[in-house]
Amino acid sequence: MTADAVAGRAKAQACAICHGAIGLSTQPDAPNLAGQPAVFLSSQLRAYRSGERRHEVMNIVAKPLSDDDIDNLAAWFSSVRIDAHAPP
Amino acid sequence: MTADAVAGRAKAQACAICHGAIGLSTQPDAPNLAGQPAVFLSSQLRAYRSGERRHEVMNIVAKPLSDDDIDNLAAWFSSVRIDAHAPP
Repeated sequence: MTADAVAGRAKAQACAICHGAIGLSTQPDAPNLAGQPAVFLSSQLRAYRSGERRHEVMNIVAKPLSDDDIDNLAAWFSSVRIDAHAPP
Repeated sequence: MTADAVAGRAKAQACAICHGAIGLSTQPDAPNLAGQPAVFLSSQLRAYRSGERRHEVMNIVAKPLSDDDIDNLAAWFSSVRIDAHAPP
């Protein structure tokens, strides 16, 4: 199937407490997900699900995700456009 | 010592080929680093350095970094301001 960013956005409500509603982190130890490449996001979520990448919270929340859930979440967060401004 | 974003910016030239000059990824499997929380960045670099987080390239490039290098790199990338725009 093709990844569904709208379904991913709905599923991402569970991510918001740490990663923010559109993927801007609310915690110093949580990364921004907004605008990350979908390939990167889906590989990391799979690594959390399998336990290959370890994190107390992420290993638990990723466990029940299906491949479609993961691809949809990755499609959603990667669809957020980001602009970056370096300090002078 | 206090982290030095200017020193981090100089050191970050080695990161640019994958993560972009100001931390916007140039590769589908590399994350954006721009605007990530410094605490998050420094913990991940330490995990790459120790091997706790595994990645073929990152384990090699993080190996020789000192704690100061890591804190400086984290200070630099976190000093890049990002704006995010969700699709409607």
